[in-house]
Amino acid sequence: MIPVRILGTASVLSGRPRTTTELAESLVPRRNPAAMERKTGIRTRYWVDEGTTMAGLGAEALGQALAASGLEARALRRIIFATSTGGDCLIPATANRVAAALGLAGSCDCLDVNNACMGFLTAFDLGARSVATGLGPVGVVVVETPSRYVTPADHRPYLVFADAAAAAVLGTGRPGEGVLAARLWNNGSLPPDTVLAHPGLTGQREFVTFVQPADDIVRIALDALCAGAKATLEEAGLRLDEVEWVLPHQPSGAMLAYIVSALGLDPARIVRVVEEIGSVGSASVPVSLDRLLRTRPVRPGDRILMVGVGAGVAHGAILYRVGT
Amino acid sequence: MIPVRILGTASVLSGRPRTTTELAESLVPRRNPAAMERKTGIRTRYWVDEGTTMAGLGAEALGQALAASGLEARALRRIIFATSTGGDCLIPATANRVAAALGLAGSCDCLDVNNACMGFLTAFDLGARSVATGLGPVGVVVVETPSRYVTPADHRPYLVFADAAAAAVLGTGRPGEGVLAARLWNNGSLPPDTVLAHPGLTGQREFVTFVQPADDIVRIALDALCAGAKATLEEAGLRLDEVEWVLPHQPSGAMLAYIVSALGLDPARIVRVVEEIGSVGSASVPVSLDRLLRTRPVRPGDRILMVGVGAGVAHGAILYRVGT
Repeated sequence: MIPVRILGTASVLSGRPRTTTELAESLVPRRNPAAMERKTGIRTRYWVDEGTTMAGLGAEALGQALAASGLEARALRRIIFATSTGGDCLIPATANRVAAALGLAGSCDCLDVNNACMGFLTAFDLGARSVATGLGPVGVVVVETPSRYVTPADHRPYLVFADAAAAAVLGTGRPGEGVLAARLWNNGSLPPDTVLAHPGLTGQREFVTFVQPADDIVRIALDALCAGAKATLEEAGLRLDEVEWVLPHQPSGAMLAYIVSALGLDPARIVRVVEEIGSVGSASVPVSLDRLLRTRPVRPGDRILMVGVGAGVAHGAILYRVGT
Repeated sequence: MIPVRILGTASVLSGRPRTTTELAESLVPRRNPAAMERKTGIRTRYWVDEGTTMAGLGAEALGQALAASGLEARALRRIIFATSTGGDCLIPATANRVAAALGLAGSCDCLDVNNACMGFLTAFDLGARSVATGLGPVGVVVVETPSRYVTPADHRPYLVFADAAAAAVLGTGRPGEGVLAARLWNNGSLPPDTVLAHPGLTGQREFVTFVQPADDIVRIALDALCAGAKATLEEAGLRLDEVEWVLPHQPSGAMLAYIVSALGLDPARIVRVVEEIGSVGSASVPVSLDRLLRTRPVRPGDRILMVGVGAGVAHGAILYRVGT
C-alpha cells in the first residue's frame, strides 16, 4: 500500500454550455440532433472562452481543492499539472504559471505530465509516491481544453470533446488509508486510436483525430480498461462487488454503457458525468472523484476504484481506501 | 534518503556535427566565427537529421542504458520520457513509442514529463520515488531536439541549442545508496527567460526565444542554481568540498564558467560537455552523468551533486551517493 490521503478535491467547468443540438445543427452537412445525442450520449458540454488560459483554470481548480483541504497554497511541496495537448506554452512547463497564479514564488516544484486520458491516474500515482517518500502535500491538477483542437470538418471528435479542469490535494495517509493497489500500463504496440500531431513538427494546424473505426476503438479500449480493473483488484485481493465506488473514464455515453456492462457495475456506485460535460480527457475521472466526495455518502473504509484508458494505449486502475 | 541505485546510463548524439564556424558564417549578417565561439563557449554540436524521431532516439539511449544495466527491456516497470518541446506528437505521449520501439507491449507504464531544462532532475526524482515505493526498475529517458525550434533569423538561440538523448535506469538501492537530498523548486513569479509558445494555440510556427537580456538571464539562473545546490547540501549536512563529483547544467560555455566560479568548483570534479555538444536542454546533466560513470574513477561511497536551472524558473539539485 502507498499511504496517502486525498485532502480535498475540486472541479471547474468554464465557458458557455453548448448542447449537442446546437453543434449538430451547425455542421455541414447538418446532423440530426436527436441521433447525435443518442450516439454520443452527450447532451451538453463546456468549451472555454477565447483568452481563458489553462494555467488560470488550473489555478482555479487547485485553489478550490486547497480550500477544501483547509490548506494554504504555500503548504504545497509539488504541483503536478496533467494535460494531453501541451499547456499554454511548451517552454516553460505550464505548471509554473499555475503556481504563480496561486501567488507562489518558489515554495514548491512544478512539472507537466502527459499520458493522454490516463493523465490524472498517472499524476495521482506520482503524487502519491511523492507524498509516501516525504514530499507532500502534492497538488495534482488536470486541465483539458480539446475544444481548441477540434474542427467542425471532422464530426466525430467535434461532437464529443469538451473542456474541464479538476484537482486533488494529496497529503500524508492515516493508518490504513491510501492506494491499496495501482496497476498502470502503456502498450504502444497496439494500433494508434486517438492522435494529435505536433504542429511544431508538421508546420500546420493540427486537430485531434480518431484514426481507427469506432468499433475497433471500443473493443481495444474496453479490453484494456477491464484488464486494468481486474489486475488492480487482484493485487488488492478484492472482488469488484466489494468495492463501494467505481469511477471509470467516460469518453462517451456509449462507451460508458459498454464499461458498465462489461464490468457489471451497479449504477448506484458510479458517478455519471459524460452526459453533462462531454469527453473531457484526463479530467473525466477527477471530475467524477470530486462529485463523488462532495455529493455521495462516502464513508471511512470505503474503497474507490479509479479506472481508465486512453491513447497510447494507456490503461490501468488505482484502488484507493478512504481514511477516517 | 530515497534508496535507489543507478543501474546503468547511456547517451546518444545523432546527426552530423556542426561547428560554430559553419553556423556563424551562414548567418545574415555573417557573424565572426572566432568571436561566436568565444561568446558561446561551444565549438561543435549535433542536430538530428530530418526523419529522426524522438522516440527512436529515446529507445536507442534507453536500450543502451539497459544493456549497461544488464537488464532486458521487459524488466522495466515504468518509462519516464522527458523533453521540453513536446514529443513526436502531443497525443499519445511519446513514451508509448519509446516502449514500442524497445519491443515492449504493455509490460510497463509510460509517461511524458516536461520541466524545461530541469526535466531530467524532475524525472530522476519521480523515478527514484517510484522505485522506493516498489515500482522499479524505472527507465528515465531524455530527448531534446531544439534544433527543430530555432531559426537563423534569431542568432542567440540558433548558435547555442543542440540535440542529444540520454537515459538512466534506476533500480532498488543497496544499503546507504541513493538520493541523500533533493531540493527542487519552480518560481513562476520570476520574469520569463526562455519561451517556446505553443504553435497549436498561436496558429503559427514557433521558435525558442530568449525574452530577457543575456545579463539578466545569467544573474537569475546563477542565483537559482546556487540556491538549489546550497539547500540540497544543507539538507544532507555536507559541504560542497565534501562532494566528489558535481554535474551542473551547461547551457553555454560562458554560463558554465560563471557556475564554476560562483560555486568555486574544482574543474577536476566536473565533466565538461558544452564545448562539444552545445546547449542540449534537459539532456545536459544526464549526458554528463553518463560520461562521469563511464570515464571517471567513481568509487563506492562517492557523492554526485546534479544541479540545474531552466525556464520556469525551475531549479534545484539532487545529491546521490554511489553504492557498492
